[in-house]
Amino acid sequence: MIGIFDSGIGGLTVVKALQKKLFHQQLLYFGDTARTPYGSKSPETLVRYARQNTEWLLEHGAKIIVVACNSASAAATVQLRKDYPGVPIFGVITPAVEAAVTKTRNGLIGLVGTRATVSSNLYGTYAKKMSDGKVQVFANACPLLVPLVEEGWFSAGETKRIVKKYVHPLRAKNVDTLILGCTHYPLLKQIFQQKMGNQTILIDSAEELAKSVVHYLDENPDSIKKLPKKKSVFYVSDITSHFQYIAERWLGETIELHKVACA
Amino acid sequence: MIGIFDSGIGGLTVVKALQKKLFHQQLLYFGDTARTPYGSKSPETLVRYARQNTEWLLEHGAKIIVVACNSASAAATVQLRKDYPGVPIFGVITPAVEAAVTKTRNGLIGLVGTRATVSSNLYGTYAKKMSDGKVQVFANACPLLVPLVEEGWFSAGETKRIVKKYVHPLRAKNVDTLILGCTHYPLLKQIFQQKMGNQTILIDSAEELAKSVVHYLDENPDSIKKLPKKKSVFYVSDITSHFQYIAERWLGETIELHKVACA
Repeated sequence: MIGIFDSGIGGLTVVKALQKKLFHQQLLYFGDTARTPYGSKSPETLVRYARQNTEWLLEHGAKIIVVACNSASAAATVQLRKDYPGVPIFGVITPAVEAAVTKTRNGLIGLVGTRATVSSNLYGTYAKKMSDGKVQVFANACPLLVPLVEEGWFSAGETKRIVKKYVHPLRAKNVDTLILGCTHYPLLKQIFQQKMGNQTILIDSAEELAKSVVHYLDENPDSIKKLPKKKSVFYVSDITSHFQYIAERWLGETIELHKVACA
Repeated sequence: MIGIFDSGIGGLTVVKALQKKLFHQQLLYFGDTARTPYGSKSPETLVRYARQNTEWLLEHGAKIIVVACNSASAAATVQLRKDYPGVPIFGVITPAVEAAVTKTRNGLIGLVGTRATVSSNLYGTYAKKMSDGKVQVFANACPLLVPLVEEGWFSAGETKRIVKKYVHPLRAKNVDTLILGCTHYPLLKQIFQQKMGNQTILIDSAEELAKSVVHYLDENPDSIKKLPKKKSVFYVSDITSHFQYIAERWLGETIELHKVACA
């Protein structure tokens, strides 16, 4: 099985992208809803949570780990690869950076994400490395967007005003490509496009992550057994009716939520 | 010592109110920043967190426990009193309800709070009991206000618009008293007053909680030793520079943050 973890609900955009591309494959999802969100937490705490989530997925049959959360990817992917050397671990940052570096025309890339993601500076560091220093990344943390998305305010006037405020400094830098560096943000794609202008290339980090997992499976067809199609399985560390409502609205299907036992 | 816990930063409004009234008393604060916020989580999870936080405060010398978070008070105060029968435990709900029931003229009380607080229905149940069924509580959950306050957007246009949206259904019910049922909300007091109108009586749950603790100490002068004045002590389960910044801005003094070891 492919194991996916996220701070809570955001990683479901990755599930959706993966399900579209890997319709035969059962996914095992873990959303850490008891400790969500991750975007405001420190790297040390995120490494600890990422390890616990990875352990849980491996114990429950995952052979591949997908870190479907930018904040956790920024803080913990490198450490997870050290801790679990035999396990393919996919983070959300590298695929998005690759896409952005390939697509930018003027070498000026914008990044929007949580405070944890932005302050890690990883997007900028990777982009510099991949482009031999030719591109530059300008970042702005957008801490209010996760709660707005989780409230389902996808097209509220307030959301539009707040997105406009957040992208303003990036527009001023004349970026031609914008990385949506948080798995919640694909749900605000239209607003971002509108506020950045039609010419701006948007990079959906959930979509790029799904592409890179599919690419890996194509190259390594034996890494996971192809099983008869089964519904994906969803576990969370806390169940609330709001989560169930939002999850089903996003995925467009009913899901059965299971709660893991917590210490 | 008086032990205070909160999901993170919100309880600092209670600290501020207590420090004003009990300037000689050292406070021991625990903010669960590694798992914040509490307002979107289930009652079962909140009871588990409240027990862990109470244990920690008792182990570190607290003789009185103050639950400085409406969501945790709603979910766990009754259970904590059962679990720790010898320990005085103060929740934030009863004092606010008492104040509201005393002050309302038309018997129609509004409540704003997190989703966890509102769906507990505790404010309404207590208000009915205290008034022999004479008052009615109308509640609206305001999940976006905690993130707006934590961003320090105390007077942003977006915050004003969102507060207006949230209080609209309560204005329509003609409430004459509004309980600010979340320890973050005192920082938005002016906006609430403006959007509700000058005639509306606002009940600050942090302020009322502090009053009830002071009242208890007056009646039970031997419950806590009067020690030479010492600075309050602040522990959190996760340290970020943003927390430190916001905490010092709210309290108007520099604080030393300590991190507890987490499993």
